[in-house]
Amino acid sequence: MHTLTVDLGDRSYPIYIGTGLLDRAELYTPHIKGRQVLIVTNETVAPLYLQRVKTALQQTSGLQVDEVILPDGEAFKNLDTLNLIYDALLEKRHNRTTTLLALGGGVIGDMCGYAAASYQRGVNFIQVPTTLLSQVDSSVGGKTGVNHRLGKNMIGAFHQPQCVLADTETLNTLPERELSAGIAEVIKYGLICDEPFYRWLQDNMAALMARDPRALAYAIERSCQNKAEVVAQDETESGIRATLNLGHTFGHAIESHQGYGQWLHGEAVGAGMLQAADLSWRMGNISAPELEALRALLQQAGLPVTGPADMTVDDYLSRMVVDKKVLDGRIRLVLLQRIGEACITSEVPRELLLQTLQAGNRLGCP
Amino acid sequence: MHTLTVDLGDRSYPIYIGTGLLDRAELYTPHIKGRQVLIVTNETVAPLYLQRVKTALQQTSGLQVDEVILPDGEAFKNLDTLNLIYDALLEKRHNRTTTLLALGGGVIGDMCGYAAASYQRGVNFIQVPTTLLSQVDSSVGGKTGVNHRLGKNMIGAFHQPQCVLADTETLNTLPERELSAGIAEVIKYGLICDEPFYRWLQDNMAALMARDPRALAYAIERSCQNKAEVVAQDETESGIRATLNLGHTFGHAIESHQGYGQWLHGEAVGAGMLQAADLSWRMGNISAPELEALRALLQQAGLPVTGPADMTVDDYLSRMVVDKKVLDGRIRLVLLQRIGEACITSEVPRELLLQTLQAGNRLGCP
Repeated sequence: MHTLTVDLGDRSYPIYIGTGLLDRAELYTPHIKGRQVLIVTNETVAPLYLQRVKTALQQTSGLQVDEVILPDGEAFKNLDTLNLIYDALLEKRHNRTTTLLALGGGVIGDMCGYAAASYQRGVNFIQVPTTLLSQVDSSVGGKTGVNHRLGKNMIGAFHQPQCVLADTETLNTLPERELSAGIAEVIKYGLICDEPFYRWLQDNMAALMARDPRALAYAIERSCQNKAEVVAQDETESGIRATLNLGHTFGHAIESHQGYGQWLHGEAVGAGMLQAADLSWRMGNISAPELEALRALLQQAGLPVTGPADMTVDDYLSRMVVDKKVLDGRIRLVLLQRIGEACITSEVPRELLLQTLQAGNRLGCP
Repeated sequence: MHTLTVDLGDRSYPIYIGTGLLDRAELYTPHIKGRQVLIVTNETVAPLYLQRVKTALQQTSGLQVDEVILPDGEAFKNLDTLNLIYDALLEKRHNRTTTLLALGGGVIGDMCGYAAASYQRGVNFIQVPTTLLSQVDSSVGGKTGVNHRLGKNMIGAFHQPQCVLADTETLNTLPERELSAGIAEVIKYGLICDEPFYRWLQDNMAALMARDPRALAYAIERSCQNKAEVVAQDETESGIRATLNLGHTFGHAIESHQGYGQWLHGEAVGAGMLQAADLSWRMGNISAPELEALRALLQQAGLPVTGPADMTVDDYLSRMVVDKKVLDGRIRLVLLQRIGEACITSEVPRELLLQTLQAGNRLGCP
């Protein structure tokens, strides 16, 4: 087992990465301060892992362990589903010393984290991410929240967990599409701040796709390390942290246009990263071969490399304007300065942005 | 105009108290950092004051000023109504530099503040309280939130405003019942931490009930000062701040039993404070004449001095257990150590608590 620390002063917390962590009572115990735990999970994950986590927690005598099982999917990441968590907490009379435990992917982590941020004005929570995406992304950084019909993650809070348990064994049950979606975020870390890791990914993508445990553990650790460093520098996203949103402004437009849950978040980010790279190429920041190599890497990872066929330039623009990354009406984009370094700019020539959006299925074409 | 500062380090903010503040553009301007403002108000307050606030804000050129008018009352302090604020923010495309402005009583302040805490993970807000209760209580201290059907203020956040404008002229339109409800909280400050103020209130209650502007301004300022001092010592209510909840555990039980909105919050707190005082008398902390004098003061303020006639001991107990002030199943109560000093205890002999609850309409009887 490896332990990373996210350094946030008195809100610092450890990330445990390894195999078989779910069953290890001694990893949870130090992070539970009261006598109550509510496990928040979903219909897909519950049959696989709920009992193991409960058994581990029940080794602590006198601990009241409750559970709430939510419907599965991004389409349910909303205030109505959130209310099911509040219902469970109140029906089981959880007080403000309770601990919530998120057992599932990013949607569960975001909703459980936000329930923890807002229940009785803030209680503790533990993240047990069971997808690659949530292990490398949403379990690190304290962003929590739900979607609104007019925008993704529009309601939420910054709220740090007490600890994160990333058990790599849980990836064995992950559907192929979700593995790919997670790898999209892994590639992102290479692109924005870690060129050596990007090269490593080019050499080891086949191993990752074959779920080689060593390769996965390395990719998770390196990704978390990269994210933890960025988050520690900028907890509330006033500056550098925004580079973690590479591909997200395009990606959110895709997700929002298709209806949440049709494209997986990582799939939309994959296509969005390629659009960001296409625009970076048009601005002269990266070369055509580099753009082509990224496209090949995303394809090898089983990710879409174009947006939805029916999505028009106006579809993109209208949705990009409402994105949180907009300041005073100007679209601020995260682009590549080079492979391994991102930049944030609101100085994108509009015609180049339009070219990228118009290129559609033929990204990288003039 | 008087200015108090709530001292919370980099979250410190001023409270302006005086007459005619609503119209003074220069009070709002320094506290608005972006180019958008959403005024959150209700159907009762909007016809009285909305246009004046809009006119003042519109003196700042280029400022986008939007409004959302909510139904009036505690019964609407819930997630559904909160969603109307999110709808307005997203439909008008407010970004994360927006400022929300709460124009109304405590319910508006709590909901607007919580919308500000959670919209895009946190934006700024300004409080313009228009009731005595909200001027002396809910606009100071950063508590925001909404009710759940199983408990009051169960969903929320700590989120400090940029500033508070308490315009005493707005109290001229306040219904009698709401004036009394506000005075309940004013009396509370005397009881828990300011005996000289309590004596002043005994001498000046008639002037307050006659809405003498000088008396009201003094009572508001002294109350805010007391609350600001307590909050500055304990922003997130881990210790002394809990004394501000004198009467609230009983009061919340009453509100919850009657259905939110039937009793005003201040009315329930008034009756609840007398129950807390009754229990304090049974424990030997205050004398029978002191208990009687408090009952007389509450009556002079037009407040109820008994709980609902049909509320049983079990009705109280079952609702007090789910209150936030419960730690690990033990009821923690705020009581009086003496007039002018509160204490927090989980050591209340159960039989004395039962006597207070059984005494019902005959508080202070053996």
